[in-house]
Amino acid sequence: MVSNKNKIFNDPVYGFISIPDALHFDIIEHQFFQRLRRIKQLGLTHLVYPGALHTRFHHSLGAMFLMQQAIQVLRSKGHQITKDESIAASLAILLHDTGHGPYSHTLEQTIVKGVSHEAISLLMMQKLNAHFGGNLEEAIAIFKGEHPKRFLSNMVSSQFDMDRLDYLKRDSFFTGVTEGNVNVERLLIMLDVVDNELVIEAKGIYSIEKFIVARRLMYWQVYLHKTVLSAEFMLTNALNRAKELSAQTDLWATPALQYFLKNATGMSDFEQSSEMLEQFSRLDDFDVFTALKVWSGHPDKVLSYLSSSIVNRHLFKVEIRPEPFEEGKIEAIRQSIMRHFSMTATEANYLLIIGETSNHAYHPNQSQINILYKDGTIKDISSASDQLNISVLSHPVTKHFMCYPKELAGLSGI
Amino acid sequence: MVSNKNKIFNDPVYGFISIPDALHFDIIEHQFFQRLRRIKQLGLTHLVYPGALHTRFHHSLGAMFLMQQAIQVLRSKGHQITKDESIAASLAILLHDTGHGPYSHTLEQTIVKGVSHEAISLLMMQKLNAHFGGNLEEAIAIFKGEHPKRFLSNMVSSQFDMDRLDYLKRDSFFTGVTEGNVNVERLLIMLDVVDNELVIEAKGIYSIEKFIVARRLMYWQVYLHKTVLSAEFMLTNALNRAKELSAQTDLWATPALQYFLKNATGMSDFEQSSEMLEQFSRLDDFDVFTALKVWSGHPDKVLSYLSSSIVNRHLFKVEIRPEPFEEGKIEAIRQSIMRHFSMTATEANYLLIIGETSNHAYHPNQSQINILYKDGTIKDISSASDQLNISVLSHPVTKHFMCYPKELAGLSGI
Amino acid sequence: MVSNKNKIFNDPVYGFISIPDALHFDIIEHQFFQRLRRIKQLGLTHLVYPGALHTRFHHSLGAMFLMQQAIQVLRSKGHQITKDESIAASLAILLHDTGHGPYSHTLEQTIVKGVSHEAISLLMMQKLNAHFGGNLEEAIAIFKGEHPKRFLSNMVSSQFDMDRLDYLKRDSFFTGVTEGNVNVERLLIMLDVVDNELVIEAKGIYSIEKFIVARRLMYWQVYLHKTVLSAEFMLTNALNRAKELSAQTDLWATPALQYFLKNATGMSDFEQSSEMLEQFSRLDDFDVFTALKVWSGHPDKVLSYLSSSIVNRHLFKVEIRPEPFEEGKIEAIRQSIMRHFSMTATEANYLLIIGETSNHAYHPNQSQINILYKDGTIKDISSASDQLNISVLSHPVTKHFMCYPKELAGLSGI
Amino acid sequence: MVSNKNKIFNDPVYGFISIPDALHFDIIEHQFFQRLRRIKQLGLTHLVYPGALHTRFHHSLGAMFLMQQAIQVLRSKGHQITKDESIAASLAILLHDTGHGPYSHTLEQTIVKGVSHEAISLLMMQKLNAHFGGNLEEAIAIFKGEHPKRFLSNMVSSQFDMDRLDYLKRDSFFTGVTEGNVNVERLLIMLDVVDNELVIEAKGIYSIEKFIVARRLMYWQVYLHKTVLSAEFMLTNALNRAKELSAQTDLWATPALQYFLKNATGMSDFEQSSEMLEQFSRLDDFDVFTALKVWSGHPDKVLSYLSSSIVNRHLFKVEIRPEPFEEGKIEAIRQSIMRHFSMTATEANYLLIIGETSNHAYHPNQSQINILYKDGTIKDISSASDQLNISVLSHPVTKHFMCYPKELAGLSGI
Repeated sequence: MVSNKNKIFNDPVYGFISIPDALHFDIIEHQFFQRLRRIKQLGLTHLVYPGALHTRFHHSLGAMFLMQQAIQVLRSKGHQITKDESIAASLAILLHDTGHGPYSHTLEQTIVKGVSHEAISLLMMQKLNAHFGGNLEEAIAIFKGEHPKRFLSNMVSSQFDMDRLDYLKRDSFFTGVTEGNVNVERLLIMLDVVDNELVIEAKGIYSIEKFIVARRLMYWQVYLHKTVLSAEFMLTNALNRAKELSAQTDLWATPALQYFLKNATGMSDFEQSSEMLEQFSRLDDFDVFTALKVWSGHPDKVLSYLSSSIVNRHLFKVEIRPEPFEEGKIEAIRQSIMRHFSMTATEANYLLIIGETSNHAYHPNQSQINILYKDGTIKDISSASDQLNISVLSHPVTKHFMCYPKELAGLSGI
Repeated sequence: MVSNKNKIFNDPVYGFISIPDALHFDIIEHQFFQRLRRIKQLGLTHLVYPGALHTRFHHSLGAMFLMQQAIQVLRSKGHQITKDESIAASLAILLHDTGHGPYSHTLEQTIVKGVSHEAISLLMMQKLNAHFGGNLEEAIAIFKGEHPKRFLSNMVSSQFDMDRLDYLKRDSFFTGVTEGNVNVERLLIMLDVVDNELVIEAKGIYSIEKFIVARRLMYWQVYLHKTVLSAEFMLTNALNRAKELSAQTDLWATPALQYFLKNATGMSDFEQSSEMLEQFSRLDDFDVFTALKVWSGHPDKVLSYLSSSIVNRHLFKVEIRPEPFEEGKIEAIRQSIMRHFSMTATEANYLLIIGETSNHAYHPNQSQINILYKDGTIKDISSASDQLNISVLSHPVTKHFMCYPKELAGLSGI
Repeated sequence: MVSNKNKIFNDPVYGFISIPDALHFDIIEHQFFQRLRRIKQLGLTHLVYPGALHTRFHHSLGAMFLMQQAIQVLRSKGHQITKDESIAASLAILLHDTGHGPYSHTLEQTIVKGVSHEAISLLMMQKLNAHFGGNLEEAIAIFKGEHPKRFLSNMVSSQFDMDRLDYLKRDSFFTGVTEGNVNVERLLIMLDVVDNELVIEAKGIYSIEKFIVARRLMYWQVYLHKTVLSAEFMLTNALNRAKELSAQTDLWATPALQYFLKNATGMSDFEQSSEMLEQFSRLDDFDVFTALKVWSGHPDKVLSYLSSSIVNRHLFKVEIRPEPFEEGKIEAIRQSIMRHFSMTATEANYLLIIGETSNHAYHPNQSQINILYKDGTIKDISSASDQLNISVLSHPVTKHFMCYPKELAGLSGI
Repeated sequence: MVSNKNKIFNDPVYGFISIPDALHFDIIEHQFFQRLRRIKQLGLTHLVYPGALHTRFHHSLGAMFLMQQAIQVLRSKGHQITKDESIAASLAILLHDTGHGPYSHTLEQTIVKGVSHEAISLLMMQKLNAHFGGNLEEAIAIFKGEHPKRFLSNMVSSQFDMDRLDYLKRDSFFTGVTEGNVNVERLLIMLDVVDNELVIEAKGIYSIEKFIVARRLMYWQVYLHKTVLSAEFMLTNALNRAKELSAQTDLWATPALQYFLKNATGMSDFEQSSEMLEQFSRLDDFDVFTALKVWSGHPDKVLSYLSSSIVNRHLFKVEIRPEPFEEGKIEAIRQSIMRHFSMTATEANYLLIIGETSNHAYHPNQSQINILYKDGTIKDISSASDQLNISVLSHPVTKHFMCYPKELAGLSGI
């Protein structure tokens, strides 16, 4: 696989991915990037789709591959992109996910509450920049949206960026939900630049519609799959309980996880303490899941119940519907939990999840997807589509859900 | 995904896999089987092929799927297979891998030395049989090769069994080494039974040749890939070092791993101690890899070097060639290691791996692949092939290798 | 491939297609069915998508394959379908397209004006029924929608029938327009029957939405592709001109084509004259395209221009827009054609095509696609979809177009 | 699809194929090249594999695509290839098949006996060169193997050329014989040049072995499939009979086919008569198959029997075996044919085919496939392979066959 620094990765999605130069190679070898090998792209989704074990490492390489293809397309249409800009854009997308922790969405609500992965990615890129003699300056500018060629930033982060293109295709591939597959090749050859912004040629309009529909399908069928949501909420509660217990007593954990269970964390802590970033860079799926395995035998009823339930895939029952649940019904279930598990109300709250989830297939108010017509005019996809469905898709859909232990499903009053 | 006990799994390889009945469902839910979700099919291979994260759980379901297809084919050709036999064969293949530990090939040479995964699979099937009221008797007979319909056992274990068909196809899929892909559908419709043994119709002969060639290719390109071998040997040495240290001192490990580092294990221990099987059923990839992460900071130079090198993919350089390496060369490298790392000879031996590996693409002396001609005659594939290549492929190829830290590659004398 | 009457076809779309019994085999061998080997599914579309050469023969086998899968699904859900009903449904879908002529849409507007291919399919099925001793009675009842199990007819012809499922998937495959690919396997396992009608389980709702979007995409990108439309209209005009010339003089043609150029044809002619059906059963793509090749050298300017332009892919320029074209612009182009080609107005009209095309992605007023909820309620997909887009998609979109020789594109006034 | 001269073709095999410049575009538009749209790559193979309707047009575009990929690989390894050389190599492979007639192998034994398609390709390239102002000089030099950069010619024609790579992959795709699929992408990135000759890097050795095995499999399973052979021989006999009848009487045929039935043809005729090349450029699958359809009703028993049998796929029974058939058996069948069809011995000979076929998977004496080792040494693949199978595969395999009407299969004495 490796010959000097000319590595080629086998990728079941695109075939082969080449590392373009030595700088890319060295960054990929760095432990900040190698860590992504141990962070699954889709967290606990594999409990529903057993193939979904692919990592942020693989996704980042894939997005880098697409960036290089996209740059080739834009150059072939006469847009000048220097070699340095090309490398910078490629590095920006390669590193865009380095700040993700294990089970990221859960983590950001528990042990690193309120710290966004984008902010940590930026901190890590700055560390790498220092390490590699300032060679990431331009990549950082693109990542922050401060580069004069705005279209390069569009390709890193927008509603039609290389990140989404890769993750939709890759998640579809590994889950086996083939309807989510997008024709990346066709979409890329439709790219163009007008007024420094990324646009799509009008003849690609059906492909864009399809892309948005595929994305929506993946949301409901995979990302917001009710069993996946249930597993993630159980993990959130398990980690919150662990943090609570850690404050009082010694709880088994790896050193890195220990650190985050014991310490308050906020963005300012990361900025002030280089140790925190260091510890974070050691944290991955192994720390969290191994803890769940050990905690399965813990004397605390809440912690052991939640942990062993995730490990053995004994997941909560999920009810889902368009309207909120009535307070009376919620209370009845809380009472059942207390009775069935001999728990206090506080404990029972860890076994009862009430929430809502919503999804925009397309946000017309965010970075738009612009369609370029042959006569030079540009329209947002939601008005360009000759059927209104895209504008309809841009309305959010909200669903309410309630999750609780399966054991209760047959009990009276539920 | 689940509705009552009619689960359907999404599988990117075959599309959908249905669970045929409630017994299968309950066994899949059992923690013995759920554990396979946490044991990668290909151990450390993902360090070379980043997509190769698929698990023995997924493989076992795939092999079960193929078994059901195969039974349908045989029935359509007039062979009687009762419903009970069909269920038993399906359960036998479903459970054939439950005895695998994490990084199995490594484990069998270190912390459960000399205990084959087949033997543990059998122990686990017997436990499950007790748990499920004796419903696995017939499956166990098939697994042990003691069922009167020998062709059912052939489908579970032979040179052309559902296990191999699935793993070749699945490993090819997830590594992205597309040349290893086999046309499972075509191979299955060629199955037949003569004299109670599984045979292949003559018109499938080219497909069988292709199957054997694909298997050989996968061996050299994936299973025996030199960087994969290097990583596995490093893990072997790390675990052996950990066991050695554990005898003297307390070494950080999860409880399950702790148990195996501390206790001598052999097949007789498993048979005598139900605790050992219990502990084994808690051991998975998370225990081993998390330990490597923590050991990366251990004061023992050997353990921390090996652990951090695996975690950060700083793998040994590998030399490979048809002849054994000269003792002089080996000694020179050992000296270099001692000097460079300030190690004793004993310690240095953990950083130097000498070995050989060999592969038969086809073993004519093991369970043969039999070809059935229209006139009723049967020949082994190695004599049926109208070119001799198969008989040639059946000669083993042996390669010698030597692995040592990359840092030494440039040092004088190497 | 053939062994006795147990034929298996290789199909790049599904892998293998088995012929279920001897009656199917004999019908497939019959020249009515073999003729479909010489009738491309997508007429002249291969002039735009060079892979689109697949035939109605292959499509019919594919639809038969899906019917058998669908029946297996329904049976597994407890719906009784007898062996005879299964055979009948399979034959009905196998033969549903036998009445297609070459370049069917064109033919129905020229040499067999006003004769629908469904009507001819029925005539052919009746002939085959007589030939095979009445064995197709039940298949005919299903085809005509007169079978007591209405859901069998739904599977042959409705907005979610095996015909559409196969052609979308197959056309997507052979054109290479991968966005049109539908997940047939997933859709089939969602089938169920309520009140004697075919329904789809609610959990398949996103897949159905995707199916409708994919269908719409295939319409605009393939079936109504403007260059394909242009080629088809050119063929219509060429055949109309040939019919006109044939009335006055002897025009080169194969005997079968000769027959249709010389004779008036209407449905009543088919019903009265068994010779007409006989001649029709000899007519295929070869007759029409070979005539175009020979007519390329004909002295009539209109016929030779149109013929050679199709043969050498020198296709008309197409303008397309939401509103009708102004009469003034049309007249200007007509004048240009007359001047440029020294033609009369009548002749020029053959080189100028004005028309409109429209497409419903989904017709809520036709046979609906019904969604079955867990509580037993049923809703039409256009109201079941939790986003309104489907109801929007069910509004027709109309586009106006104008086609004329490319040579004129640069001339003044155009 | 077309915008100016920047055409992109959809290709189900590779996704998209771009036309690199205006010269390529104009050549593709030329009727010599458009004719290839009407010449199937695999002749009558679709009678066995119904998907095999792809054309030499599509194959030529595919081979051109691979050539451009290959040139990119070689450039990335530091080999200088000028823009003009790149265009020339691309045109050489694009046009390599223009000289093919319809059902080429058959044609070369009947109506253009002894005229190789390579020779006609060259004549056509020379005509095109004159037409395009000498712009094909360098392409012709590459095609003829006279270009100083010999490796460019190797890529056009050798045992590992872009022609074979494309046709294996494409034929596998459209027949559905997935075992013939080759990993083109992997093979291409292994290309290199040493001493002006194309070589393959040693790490691609298993892929090359696989390529050779896949090619052999395609030979036996597709190209030399016994039913395909039978159909082709029937066509040979039909055309020979037609030529014989044409000498005596007027036989229905299109003008272009007429020309070749009436005139003696040999290479010298082509070189002397520009009309012959002109007529040949009008001849395609439509002329031949349409004639068979019309001849199905011809009074000559031999012609009508053979023609209608091909059209309605009533193909000869084929016997195949390693040894030649005994003269006695052949004679018995000839007598049966004479009796059953009331034919003379001369006539009967048209319904009885005796022949042999053989296949080398690899010819070590032709242009070798050279493997390049890291130390710079080069070995032929048949000695480089670490198993001997390749050298074994290079021995030819010969099979004898006899074909005759199915009707006779049950008659006594056969």
